[in-house]
Amino acid sequence: PPWKFTKSHAEATIGREAFCDVSQEKTSRVRCVAQSQHHVAWDRTPQRVLVLAKRHADDEELDVAYRIARHLHEACGVDVLLADPLYEQIGKRLPAVELWQGEHVSRSPDFVATLGGDGLLLYANTLFQATPPPPVVAFGAGSLGFLAPFDVDDEQTGGTVEETLDEAVSLGEGELEPWPVSLRMRLRCRVVDGASGKVVGGHEALNEVALDRGNSPFLSAVECFCNDEHLTTAQADGLIVATPTGSTAYSLSAGGPMVHPSVNAMVFTPICAHSLSFRPIVFPDSCTLRFDVDPDARADAWVTFDGRSRVCLKRGDSLIVTASPHPLPTVLRLGNTADWFGGLRTHFNFNVRRRQQKIAEQFLNG
Amino acid sequence: PPWKFTKSHAEATIGREAFCDVSQEKTSRVRCVAQSQHHVAWDRTPQRVLVLAKRHADDEELDVAYRIARHLHEACGVDVLLADPLYEQIGKRLPAVELWQGEHVSRSPDFVATLGGDGLLLYANTLFQATPPPPVVAFGAGSLGFLAPFDVDDEQTGGTVEETLDEAVSLGEGELEPWPVSLRMRLRCRVVDGASGKVVGGHEALNEVALDRGNSPFLSAVECFCNDEHLTTAQADGLIVATPTGSTAYSLSAGGPMVHPSVNAMVFTPICAHSLSFRPIVFPDSCTLRFDVDPDARADAWVTFDGRSRVCLKRGDSLIVTASPHPLPTVLRLGNTADWFGGLRTHFNFNVRRRQQKIAEQFLNG
Amino acid sequence: PPWKFTKSHAEATIGREAFCDVSQEKTSRVRCVAQSQHHVAWDRTPQRVLVLAKRHADDEELDVAYRIARHLHEACGVDVLLADPLYEQIGKRLPAVELWQGEHVSRSPDFVATLGGDGLLLYANTLFQATPPPPVVAFGAGSLGFLAPFDVDDEQTGGTVEETLDEAVSLGEGELEPWPVSLRMRLRCRVVDGASGKVVGGHEALNEVALDRGNSPFLSAVECFCNDEHLTTAQADGLIVATPTGSTAYSLSAGGPMVHPSVNAMVFTPICAHSLSFRPIVFPDSCTLRFDVDPDARADAWVTFDGRSRVCLKRGDSLIVTASPHPLPTVLRLGNTADWFGGLRTHFNFNVRRRQQKIAEQFLNG
Amino acid sequence: PPWKFTKSHAEATIGREAFCDVSQEKTSRVRCVAQSQHHVAWDRTPQRVLVLAKRHADDEELDVAYRIARHLHEACGVDVLLADPLYEQIGKRLPAVELWQGEHVSRSPDFVATLGGDGLLLYANTLFQATPPPPVVAFGAGSLGFLAPFDVDDEQTGGTVEETLDEAVSLGEGELEPWPVSLRMRLRCRVVDGASGKVVGGHEALNEVALDRGNSPFLSAVECFCNDEHLTTAQADGLIVATPTGSTAYSLSAGGPMVHPSVNAMVFTPICAHSLSFRPIVFPDSCTLRFDVDPDARADAWVTFDGRSRVCLKRGDSLIVTASPHPLPTVLRLGNTADWFGGLRTHFNFNVRRRQQKIAEQFLNG
Repeated sequence: PPWKFTKSHAEATIGREAFCDVSQEKTSRVRCVAQSQHHVAWDRTPQRVLVLAKRHADDEELDVAYRIARHLHEACGVDVLLADPLYEQIGKRLPAVELWQGEHVSRSPDFVATLGGDGLLLYANTLFQATPPPPVVAFGAGSLGFLAPFDVDDEQTGGTVEETLDEAVSLGEGELEPWPVSLRMRLRCRVVDGASGKVVGGHEALNEVALDRGNSPFLSAVECFCNDEHLTTAQADGLIVATPTGSTAYSLSAGGPMVHPSVNAMVFTPICAHSLSFRPIVFPDSCTLRFDVDPDARADAWVTFDGRSRVCLKRGDSLIVTASPHPLPTVLRLGNTADWFGGLRTHFNFNVRRRQQKIAEQFLNG
Repeated sequence: PPWKFTKSHAEATIGREAFCDVSQEKTSRVRCVAQSQHHVAWDRTPQRVLVLAKRHADDEELDVAYRIARHLHEACGVDVLLADPLYEQIGKRLPAVELWQGEHVSRSPDFVATLGGDGLLLYANTLFQATPPPPVVAFGAGSLGFLAPFDVDDEQTGGTVEETLDEAVSLGEGELEPWPVSLRMRLRCRVVDGASGKVVGGHEALNEVALDRGNSPFLSAVECFCNDEHLTTAQADGLIVATPTGSTAYSLSAGGPMVHPSVNAMVFTPICAHSLSFRPIVFPDSCTLRFDVDPDARADAWVTFDGRSRVCLKRGDSLIVTASPHPLPTVLRLGNTADWFGGLRTHFNFNVRRRQQKIAEQFLNG
Repeated sequence: PPWKFTKSHAEATIGREAFCDVSQEKTSRVRCVAQSQHHVAWDRTPQRVLVLAKRHADDEELDVAYRIARHLHEACGVDVLLADPLYEQIGKRLPAVELWQGEHVSRSPDFVATLGGDGLLLYANTLFQATPPPPVVAFGAGSLGFLAPFDVDDEQTGGTVEETLDEAVSLGEGELEPWPVSLRMRLRCRVVDGASGKVVGGHEALNEVALDRGNSPFLSAVECFCNDEHLTTAQADGLIVATPTGSTAYSLSAGGPMVHPSVNAMVFTPICAHSLSFRPIVFPDSCTLRFDVDPDARADAWVTFDGRSRVCLKRGDSLIVTASPHPLPTVLRLGNTADWFGGLRTHFNFNVRRRQQKIAEQFLNG
Repeated sequence: PPWKFTKSHAEATIGREAFCDVSQEKTSRVRCVAQSQHHVAWDRTPQRVLVLAKRHADDEELDVAYRIARHLHEACGVDVLLADPLYEQIGKRLPAVELWQGEHVSRSPDFVATLGGDGLLLYANTLFQATPPPPVVAFGAGSLGFLAPFDVDDEQTGGTVEETLDEAVSLGEGELEPWPVSLRMRLRCRVVDGASGKVVGGHEALNEVALDRGNSPFLSAVECFCNDEHLTTAQADGLIVATPTGSTAYSLSAGGPMVHPSVNAMVFTPICAHSLSFRPIVFPDSCTLRFDVDPDARADAWVTFDGRSRVCLKRGDSLIVTASPHPLPTVLRLGNTADWFGGLRTHFNFNVRRRQQKIAEQFLNG
């Protein structure tokens, strides 16, 4: 054909590190497709592992956490770090363990083992804000979630905590297959002060960043931009930018779509938009979203990262959201699609035929 | 870091041509981002152009179509092809034009110029089902749409049809910038006969493929798969798989999200699902969606491509949907984001502050 | 008829001023409120009872149906009617029972006892199209539904089928309280031929009447009126008018609200409306809704009553929907609100805290 | 009061059987239908009129307000009251007018004339919290709304402000028809202190009462009851109870249905409910809704009435919502249905065919 297509690279706007890009130069007649499955393998044997358990763990759960820490140390021969309060709770029984002192690139654990639900993963994410997070092997405590795919003692597959850990420290060794991993996109969120133009706050969010009206009656004069193109003046209770991981959490409650973890996208979901046309929008993760609070707005706005840390977005301030170059890698049990479908089944009753037939019954002759 | 991530390539399931893939081998700590803007330039001067106008064009529109064809032939020196009924309507006034005889790779036009709305682009898409479509330069007739970004005579920018065409035939020559282009994903849809296992029908859809119940009370026993993982047994009026281009059409009516044209995704939107948990799902365009009608289903289902050709999906049959390797390239006026926001403004009143204030008034003191 | 309904007045709970109730003639400064709970009592002892079971009843269910029929005849002393296929299935074991021959005012049963789910009630409703339906005492077979509140053998309350039936035939006698009853609104639907102006079809629908596009791509030029005021020209896949009873069935799937059975309303819910502003509308049951298919429409439309009988609405024809003067009375176990909440719990997991906590977990620290 | 309301009965349009109407005592086989149109007429000539204009009226609007006040005083011979700031702004030019001193039953105006949008009606409603509000004749300033049906100078009908006012003071006199009026339900909202059991706050809301989470991450342990039956434990950002009047305001933004003003109902709409099954619910206005904040909840909640006055609902407190016996009567131009459809047209583009065809174009051949 007489034409050729070229592609300009994704460019940084807020001083982010050089992104790798989809660097096909000549695509002539053929489209690129989205990322597919990643895998993880060890370049060298892991030496340090951080163990986390949910904050209000009961005795039974503490026992499992103890099993994890002990096995890692005694059988796998790695150094074990415990964060508080777990260090307080089981540290005495494990003299060799170390207290986690916060993130340092030089002393970053080689992987993280967690015992708890999706909330614990949000907590784990807060521990690696300045450095690239290590892979996470997540055991569900009682309830399996989207982010914790491993059973403690899987009666079906016969896998125990100890067996899973044995495999985790040996990934890619000998005949072992590399494990499927999800490089979970994080949102790099920056709060920019209107007066000084300086970044005064920020977060690498795993689920979502949300703007809300706090105690004022609605979001006041928030201008929304994508790559500096003006989209709309938000008239709403709030705005959510979610990752695919977060698409099944808060954004879903606000009417957003469910987004498969392999899609390179950010979901922009308004909360109670005054205009009926203002619907959830899926943006590519290569774009920069910006939210300016008008200097003459009637009220300030509020920003919340993953439902926790909450900061005020004053009149004149901006919130800038891009894809972080540093994802949170979580080890998968079966793969992106199978693990995610498992989460849909657990949380949303997908594919449970009994219920569907019941609901359908009203349409049919009894 | 001690770990490395590898990525398995997207693999063909239904004999599609080798896909280019996002072939970064080592991504260590950094995520790839979605495609960004593509551009188009000529490798050699275009020689053949197909001109299309909407079916029920009025006299004024036929005059513009005539201007387009004449200017391309007389001023730009290219061979002009006209499809029926336009050949009937204005062919006599342009002795040198040729009647479009259907798609042949060897005689494919170098680009297509259209005069009409989004519906005309859907029609243009049907003309290039077996071959990669050439780029389209689309003029809006009266109403600007998502797919037809060029004004006939733009009083704001001073651009006329003739000036736009002059630029189109010279893309990338001399000092001219290459034009931004959208490589619009198409859905490769295949109907597979249950008895023979053979592909008995198909379409490369630009907007969406829809399953519906026809005259039976609901979709009966349709099993939904992604990459051979079972998602759910659909209990619904229908199912839609839409491209980003189609996300603002039928899928939006059914509650689907708006998807920026740069997102590499397929939107899976149920119509009147019986389960309240069955919500729109965004899948990566690297996946294969499959829909099986159970051999024991109470009724057949129906498949519609872009709202037109309609075929029966009999008990035992399957519909398989993947991303087509051959996108429909449409030339953009400003770029992916700006053109798309223009469409949102035109169709959905985005960013029209007058209206928003009116609706907001009820919340405020008058 | 042998029964009468009484209505308890709305009563104040939090010291509000005495409300006028619907029977007040002069309302000067005070608003009337909606209907509250009705009750049913016998004017004379019931003599004829129709017994229905679901079409594909298994042996266990046939046994219960037999217990119902025998107890009514032997212990309660009433004449028992059975509809086919139940007459075929258990008639031989009950020599005195009679085959149901269709509705005749003169031979109408005094009440109906049913064993099955919501679908069976839709079937029961089809048996009383021309005459006012008698009260229905509905036993759930296995699954409790919105319309079948009575357990076959309630281990919690100790109530058996026999005890419930004993009470049913003695309502209001002696010290027995009259039973709460729901006078379930039916929709009187009339299809009017455009050429002759005559009513050519109709139905008294318990759940909903739905217009759909059949095999054409969308509803074509259907004009919607309320009390002869023009509301809109529908551009949609379909339109639903539902009763409060039907609000948790098809209309809910299309995005309609859940409507408490005491609300005197019709829910008008579009299916896949092309305009984002076309949202579900709740109309008073005193209004007349009319849908005209334009004589120049591109296609006919289709009408379905309670998901069953399906008729064509040709170009020029009209569908007229009003509240039927003849409701379907269903006996309640506890009352309108309590029984309905029970249905929400069973069908939609309302008030099941375990699930809610799980979903909430993602918002919280683990 | 000097006015009385009468109610026309629901009338048959398509030969249906004579309906019983709400005044019927014995309903045996026949259902009652919802209220239909009310009308207003004077029992004695009105003597005092309160005039209101929107807070930030421009000069042109102040001129119209002056015309209203002067005409009422000079031509109609009634005493005119002005509220601040209007008294400040135009009082000097009208020596005989009086400053509105707040509501007193003994000195209540006979009607209210307003110049402004829907927000002004919300303000007017706040002036009559303890006494039954008098009828309101509402002129739209610039934009017609749901609540302000009268044009200032209607070029279509030839009606001027003065002519409308002449008619307003003479309702039901001589040959004049009584005017259609909407007895707009208000919500009687009471905040009950958990410790003392006393009512510590309240409001008669015209649009809605909303519970929100303020600055806490979500509503915490709010128990929802209808007539003391437990519905659910709310896990959501907020909860709205709206009147039919308010159904097109905040509740609509949260996904609630549009409710015709004649429906006797309260709409209960969750905001971002965590459970996908928690959908908007329409309750009869005869019921009592109660919301208890658990004494052990993690956070307090907040209550807002019509988007204004905001109070804290502390742990242990309750909010109780019933229909107020005192509606806000607003005079209609044509009738409940026609005026409401006019509002839908103005606010939501209902029945604007040009737009609909545009959106539909994508489904059709151009």
